[in-house]
Amino acid sequence: MIPASNDVFENVMELAKRRGFIWPTSECYGGVAGFIDYGPLGAMMKRRIEDIWRDFYVIREGYYEIECPTIAQEDVFIASGHVKGFSDKMCQCPHCKEYLRADHVAEGGNIRNASVMTNEDIAAAIKSCKCLSCEAELGDVEVFNFNLMFSTTIGPGSQRVGYLRPETAQGMFVDFARLLRFYRDKLPFGAVQIGKSYRNEISPRQGMIRLREFTQAEAEIFVHPDEKNRHPSFRRYADYRMPLLTHVQQQKCEGPVEISMQEAVARGIIANEYVAYYVALTHDLLVTIGIKPERLRFRQHLVDERAHYATDCWDAEVFSRRFGWVETVGIADRTDYDLNAHATQSGSPMTVFIQYDKPKKTECRRIIPNMSVLGKQYRAKANAIFAALKTATPTQKGADIEIEGEKIHIPASLFEVRDEVIEIRGEDIVPHVIEPSYGIDRMCYAVLEQAYDEDIADGETRTVLRLSPKVAPVQVAVFPLMIRDGLDSIAYEITQKLHKTGILAEYDDSGAIGRRYRRQDEIGTPFAITVDYDTKEDNTITLRDRDTMKQVRIAIPESPETIRGLVDGKISFASLANT
Amino acid sequence: MIPASNDVFENVMELAKRRGFIWPTSECYGGVAGFIDYGPLGAMMKRRIEDIWRDFYVIREGYYEIECPTIAQEDVFIASGHVKGFSDKMCQCPHCKEYLRADHVAEGGNIRNASVMTNEDIAAAIKSCKCLSCEAELGDVEVFNFNLMFSTTIGPGSQRVGYLRPETAQGMFVDFARLLRFYRDKLPFGAVQIGKSYRNEISPRQGMIRLREFTQAEAEIFVHPDEKNRHPSFRRYADYRMPLLTHVQQQKCEGPVEISMQEAVARGIIANEYVAYYVALTHDLLVTIGIKPERLRFRQHLVDERAHYATDCWDAEVFSRRFGWVETVGIADRTDYDLNAHATQSGSPMTVFIQYDKPKKTECRRIIPNMSVLGKQYRAKANAIFAALKTATPTQKGADIEIEGEKIHIPASLFEVRDEVIEIRGEDIVPHVIEPSYGIDRMCYAVLEQAYDEDIADGETRTVLRLSPKVAPVQVAVFPLMIRDGLDSIAYEITQKLHKTGILAEYDDSGAIGRRYRRQDEIGTPFAITVDYDTKEDNTITLRDRDTMKQVRIAIPESPETIRGLVDGKISFASLANT
Repeated sequence: MIPASNDVFENVMELAKRRGFIWPTSECYGGVAGFIDYGPLGAMMKRRIEDIWRDFYVIREGYYEIECPTIAQEDVFIASGHVKGFSDKMCQCPHCKEYLRADHVAEGGNIRNASVMTNEDIAAAIKSCKCLSCEAELGDVEVFNFNLMFSTTIGPGSQRVGYLRPETAQGMFVDFARLLRFYRDKLPFGAVQIGKSYRNEISPRQGMIRLREFTQAEAEIFVHPDEKNRHPSFRRYADYRMPLLTHVQQQKCEGPVEISMQEAVARGIIANEYVAYYVALTHDLLVTIGIKPERLRFRQHLVDERAHYATDCWDAEVFSRRFGWVETVGIADRTDYDLNAHATQSGSPMTVFIQYDKPKKTECRRIIPNMSVLGKQYRAKANAIFAALKTATPTQKGADIEIEGEKIHIPASLFEVRDEVIEIRGEDIVPHVIEPSYGIDRMCYAVLEQAYDEDIADGETRTVLRLSPKVAPVQVAVFPLMIRDGLDSIAYEITQKLHKTGILAEYDDSGAIGRRYRRQDEIGTPFAITVDYDTKEDNTITLRDRDTMKQVRIAIPESPETIRGLVDGKISFASLANT
Repeated sequence: MIPASNDVFENVMELAKRRGFIWPTSECYGGVAGFIDYGPLGAMMKRRIEDIWRDFYVIREGYYEIECPTIAQEDVFIASGHVKGFSDKMCQCPHCKEYLRADHVAEGGNIRNASVMTNEDIAAAIKSCKCLSCEAELGDVEVFNFNLMFSTTIGPGSQRVGYLRPETAQGMFVDFARLLRFYRDKLPFGAVQIGKSYRNEISPRQGMIRLREFTQAEAEIFVHPDEKNRHPSFRRYADYRMPLLTHVQQQKCEGPVEISMQEAVARGIIANEYVAYYVALTHDLLVTIGIKPERLRFRQHLVDERAHYATDCWDAEVFSRRFGWVETVGIADRTDYDLNAHATQSGSPMTVFIQYDKPKKTECRRIIPNMSVLGKQYRAKANAIFAALKTATPTQKGADIEIEGEKIHIPASLFEVRDEVIEIRGEDIVPHVIEPSYGIDRMCYAVLEQAYDEDIADGETRTVLRLSPKVAPVQVAVFPLMIRDGLDSIAYEITQKLHKTGILAEYDDSGAIGRRYRRQDEIGTPFAITVDYDTKEDNTITLRDRDTMKQVRIAIPESPETIRGLVDGKISFASLANT
């Protein structure tokens, strides 16, 4: 059913605020844009989503989670490019003094391609645009780059600049050498992090979609560059089909193509098996938490849109009735860019030694100087000459070398040239990185928006969050029909028993039973148990399904196992109703 | 057995680093003091400890978790007192320019009571002390206060000062009004947070004990001030006994007294049931994660040590062979201090309306002005006079009031005095707060240090982490005796089956079986399954206990349930061996 108000965003956020999913942060102090609090139900739902993510990546894929600090020193972000390049173009309205994103101002004035213009060109282009805040015509403004990292100082006396990380990824790159040893020097391996990241947005105005402090779940999968088409579990998703909006379709303004992962790789639509595998896994994961497949698409980055080092990049976009298609997950083949950048900046190699199946034999010319003669003849310079000779290309007459700018001819009699066959056991390679990166807050918003519904129950409009039982904060409600005749203590005991088996049950004895159902429907509790007078006779309770509002009677001793099965999706309510 | 090296800290940290529990952060860039990375095994162990914490506080106590940002605006920390008072006394060595904590310098020089001296007095006192870094005599130094909050700027143009929270607690106080509504306006209720907090330590040198970025788990329990001696579940811990080091004992230099919680409250040793309940729960929790009771004590803050507003405060101290008694958890009765502070700073009341069982009747004198006469006579001032009369104390002649400094006599004829009996339904009270606050990183370190052991196995020294199965990162190892004859594929299948039931199993087929056991012993894996040739005959495997190194044979189909029971502590290995 279509909700009463046209703007589902307003409805969802009102419900989320009122019932304890999402609260404005430090509300009593007027709040700060770009920050939110997860209330009791929101935090519980978020944890369930994160735990599903862990099921996919940590338990099933076997990529261990690590936990790096949210503050890191400057070097890390010099290497990553964030110190230099992580910025938005900004201007200040000369009238109301509000800071504005220049590209948003340009967009509002229908100026295209602002993202690729120089600051001067944008400034000229937006002169006649309106301020997004006070709506006055901007006029002359300066456009400058504003770095989006929050900066701070580590220790006293401004000893050290530190930044709040703009992504969790860098921690995994910086720990590469330790991770490699942990995985016993073998590729492929992966590490994941779920944690806070920070972007000091200029003027965030989109609720949970654009936050200054947000939660990311990222996996960095390190793989041999020659083996990106051999994902060990590719079979799992080879036949998985979904709509892909390739860069070719986008340029032709065509719709997405539905295609299997195997075919997508074979036809070169997705760069390799690794990227395809995580595109499919992401689809699987998002559907598991409750995103409707028809509101989910995978869009390939356009060639000029993706980072210069990435060979392929796909965004999982979720459709919001308020915000349109929202980028929620990014899956990129980042090649060896990050490891090379940190190797250069830190001076520590970030390579894996790959042993060949069979050692390779290779011819090699070795120059063996006659040290005793060289030493006598060249004295202090002898060592430098010795070193230079190793890489020289001698002729029959001798070798011409250069020592600190001085050209020296070494006659052939002072060294011997030997051609040898040597064995090479393997080589040092820089792994490539496949990175699936999830925005947990956007996933939470999408889940809430898609679950929001209104229908008619008992002749009245009912607000219901149709959350998947896997992510619903409260998993089952327990009601005594009356607070007397022992019904309440039976209900209370059932609640305790459910808690002991790890099920979050909420006991509620306040108000009419219909009102109690409504309260639980509104927070998405998928099931409700009612203890009534029959319970005392035959030790059964009624179990109600949130979506169909149907009820079945089940025996009390079976109820924890039944609820567990329903929550995990291993049994369906319909199957209970039929027995 | 006593470990080989005298310093268990070095041994533990070497193991922790080598095997992936704890890593120096951004090691390739030289690291930064006060920050650590949790490697794959450390992060897993930390999560298990956090989940046990949640079992106690969220599931059992029913206090919902919330999640507030780590960055908050200045107002919050003005109210909390951190902007003004959260600082350490600091000086800079004039020779090596190192920043030093003045109280640590004083301590090194055997100067007592530095913590209560003025900055000038400390400066004078430490003149002849040595620099803790270069060891030169300090001489003249300035001692000043250094605020320990990391500060940053929210948004562009230095619009707004923000701080990284020094504790998670403030988020729960600031959200009080929302929480109260969530709990349907009834006391007591609680909220918890597990998350990052930050203290910009001047010169942290104690590994995981003093971090600049650390994880806290805090509960804020809001209770009626008159009901602090009526914890609804007090019976659970009434007879729980443990050693308490009261402030009286400390002053007399006596040892702790072992006493039950009931007695501690009755004798006034612990301030009230709420504090006693969480002291006992904390003991229970710390023992559950693997802290040995003999290395755990509860020390009461001395009267001059505790915050001025706290009426009672106890620290759970864990004994470290490196650091001595380490404060790991604090349990405080913070009274109404925090809510009052935020109510004053924000202007929003932070009260609960408590309805009386029966409405109270009270006499009340009401003054009813004759508005028409007053209006004519005093015109513009009439409204102010009207307001002032309400609180005036009239005599028979009239009332003397003051309007903007001007004294005015209002004759008795211009108002009527009525004595009325009114009904009061209840009152607004400011709840008191009981706060148990846990340092998760210190708990992790204590667990590792206490678990570290060396013994003799097969004639060789064996390093073993005797972690509780509840916190061990890998719960069971699975080994094929040989990588042939199908033993490896059976072992691999068992591993997969264990994963599906949520058990973290690690498959390992590399090296001699004894070496594989050693690897698992070292990371604390409590159980190991070996698939051997008998497995193919009778579908059984051997199950080995880490601590006793004993083995039993169990059937494959039973193994997931058996492992689950062993990990949860519901069955003992000894009971398996006896069947």
